[in-house]
Amino acid sequence: MLLELDEKYTKSFISKESIAAIEPEVMAAQEMLHSGTGAGNKFLGWLDLPENYDRAEFMAIKEAAAEITKTVQVLVVIGIGGSYLGARAVIEFIKSQANNELNKDTPSIYFTGNSISASSLADIIKLCDCKDFAINIISKSGTTTEPAIAFRVLLEMLINQFGKEEAAKRVFVTTDKSRGTLKELADKEGYRTFVVPENIGGRYSVLTAVGLLPIAVAGVDIDALMQGAADARLEYMNPDFAKNACYRYAALRNILYRSGKKVEMLVSYEPDFTMMCEWFKQLFGESEGKDGKGIFPSSAVFSTDLHSIGQYIQQGERIMFETSVFFEDAKEDIIIGFDPKNVDGLNFLAGQTLSNVNRKAFQGTTIAHYDGGVPTIILKMKKMDEYNLGWLIYFFEKSCAISGYLLGVNPFDQPGVETYKRNMFALLGKQGYEELRSELEARLQK
Amino acid sequence: MLLELDEKYTKSFISKESIAAIEPEVMAAQEMLHSGTGAGNKFLGWLDLPENYDRAEFMAIKEAAAEITKTVQVLVVIGIGGSYLGARAVIEFIKSQANNELNKDTPSIYFTGNSISASSLADIIKLCDCKDFAINIISKSGTTTEPAIAFRVLLEMLINQFGKEEAAKRVFVTTDKSRGTLKELADKEGYRTFVVPENIGGRYSVLTAVGLLPIAVAGVDIDALMQGAADARLEYMNPDFAKNACYRYAALRNILYRSGKKVEMLVSYEPDFTMMCEWFKQLFGESEGKDGKGIFPSSAVFSTDLHSIGQYIQQGERIMFETSVFFEDAKEDIIIGFDPKNVDGLNFLAGQTLSNVNRKAFQGTTIAHYDGGVPTIILKMKKMDEYNLGWLIYFFEKSCAISGYLLGVNPFDQPGVETYKRNMFALLGKQGYEELRSELEARLQK
Repeated sequence: MLLELDEKYTKSFISKESIAAIEPEVMAAQEMLHSGTGAGNKFLGWLDLPENYDRAEFMAIKEAAAEITKTVQVLVVIGIGGSYLGARAVIEFIKSQANNELNKDTPSIYFTGNSISASSLADIIKLCDCKDFAINIISKSGTTTEPAIAFRVLLEMLINQFGKEEAAKRVFVTTDKSRGTLKELADKEGYRTFVVPENIGGRYSVLTAVGLLPIAVAGVDIDALMQGAADARLEYMNPDFAKNACYRYAALRNILYRSGKKVEMLVSYEPDFTMMCEWFKQLFGESEGKDGKGIFPSSAVFSTDLHSIGQYIQQGERIMFETSVFFEDAKEDIIIGFDPKNVDGLNFLAGQTLSNVNRKAFQGTTIAHYDGGVPTIILKMKKMDEYNLGWLIYFFEKSCAISGYLLGVNPFDQPGVETYKRNMFALLGKQGYEELRSELEARLQK
Repeated sequence: MLLELDEKYTKSFISKESIAAIEPEVMAAQEMLHSGTGAGNKFLGWLDLPENYDRAEFMAIKEAAAEITKTVQVLVVIGIGGSYLGARAVIEFIKSQANNELNKDTPSIYFTGNSISASSLADIIKLCDCKDFAINIISKSGTTTEPAIAFRVLLEMLINQFGKEEAAKRVFVTTDKSRGTLKELADKEGYRTFVVPENIGGRYSVLTAVGLLPIAVAGVDIDALMQGAADARLEYMNPDFAKNACYRYAALRNILYRSGKKVEMLVSYEPDFTMMCEWFKQLFGESEGKDGKGIFPSSAVFSTDLHSIGQYIQQGERIMFETSVFFEDAKEDIIIGFDPKNVDGLNFLAGQTLSNVNRKAFQGTTIAHYDGGVPTIILKMKKMDEYNLGWLIYFFEKSCAISGYLLGVNPFDQPGVETYKRNMFALLGKQGYEELRSELEARLQK
């Protein structure tokens, strides 16, 4: 099996009885999910997506990506949340965190419209200035504040630099199929459009045009990515709880949560996985954190963070468990050399690969944390490639859905995200929020 | 006052009585700290550092930085934990997360030796290949595995590229004043050395040569940085608990922790603050996470993460509080333009600065989270500059020490960090760990 779930380092925290007890719940969750009878069932498009995705759109994505790669130096991707994290995470994992700085035959890709920081937007403007650039704006409605502001600023810059006609060829819009202001604008101006499927929520959208267009521009093999997800889909339809790693992961984390482990730390031993951790945090945090419930999603990269929060993990409050994603092979390996003077005392490592040292760090850390009272669920993958990553993405998506049902929440809504927006609109003086505005301003003055 | 602590959004969670009750504890902690009678009192060098730092060394740092800036394209900084986070955090905050990619008249700075990932080290090698580069290795002992491996690889590369003599001019060693293998090597090979002070732990070392050399190379004004810290030191000697923001912050977070808020989320509205959050997480996590106690340190950048973990914060488990660092002014501001067609419906923002929108997002979010059951401690700063940052660094350092004493732990040790190392060494076959090795390998086989 491509992904190996190792439960060994949960044993002293999870009894056989608790696993047996949760099995019927998992089966019920599976039934709800597959029959579409559970909460949020309008948003199950991701479930069969790797099998039934729109092949014509997929081809159009590849063609647009090829054109962008051929014609521009920089692609600016404007989006927030699910319209940002997935693409960036896949690109950094498959290519590199330093992708933009490394020699390559693909455009540099900058993500913006994901904050309201003037300082950050000013940097993006500098990075595009005098460069041959294109824009991919990703927004279902076209009115989300953060990307809309960035699009206003960058579209004007694009038109100033290239003229209206040429600029139109350089704007790629990923939005709703038929509705919304962005769709209208695109049709009017002749921008090419790609579809945010109606039945797939933002955090589940990385394998749609939302993620795939920037991912393809970065030179990532999107066929292999989809194939990994498709094969994972087949694998995780297995109704045998004992053999379905995806279901077991959902079960284990819920058992740990119910026993008081309220914080999950997603751990990787590869810095290039950092943004995948952020993608995971949205997926699980937004799906589960509601009704006063949910595992708090956090993350770390080891051994880096063993030298920062490692102390806390080893000996702090016993409220957490780890989920460690470990890849057997590095993208490229390095053999540690022999130093005749052995200045650093590391000659016992001479001739070993760095990957092997990393593996021992992973094993040693897992045991250390387990002994210290932190259970670890291990997810072992083979290679840091597209196929493995597509598999892992689907694994997390499905286990998140199952896990949400086990928790007793709707894993596909996010009602709490509106609250800050409403306050912000009111404070900014948006029409229709006058009453709330007075109320909030009075509170701020107090 | 430069830093304004706003307690308003903690009011419904913290009674006046609880503040009154903790005051004597704070006074006792202050007394222990200032008189050097508390646990970890061998590591209080940071307390008066901004006042009594070594001026000659400081000058030597500036000279070396000027020379590096003049002669190389790339400075590779090798270090982990406190020998990594502070420098990177300051550079990214003052300059930019995208500093290496922006036009500038200073070298690009790459940080490595902070993981065991072959993929990441391979990228650094590519980034240095055929470039005019120098190395700053930062390690007290010289034998910490991660930096030592990276130094082996990169030193060999430097010597191959420039010859032994020229390479010697390009290696800058920050290590113990008189002891350790790295100091010996430097003396023998003629590398310039800078001092990791004996009485300052890694996580408190950003304002020593550990942080200052790379920071100065990036073109950051280290005089202003030290001045901010020095002025904060004076400010936070004030024994009046009502007026000492540093003490109050320590008190508030402990009161919240004692009431069950076990997770702190350090929040910023500036993406360039991201690595400062990581620095904070080491400072507090490593200082407090021991003896089964401590606030779990996490972080977020808003509004970015309002679209990922925002849902959890608003409606998930009520186990957290926020500490929000807000800067009044952006480094550069942007005015939102008017769009005659108002496609995105944002014309109500036309003519406003992005900073102002960001401020409203901050206010609206704070109220939303407070109403949702998440108290927020607000730390308001003026500008995103060196003076403000130096002040903030000292604020956090001193409040962390006070907070650790309130918690009843030694805030200056990190005994738990050794555990994974011991296991790793054993599994790697290091001499002296034979027994542990057999034991661990037997467990791995099971």
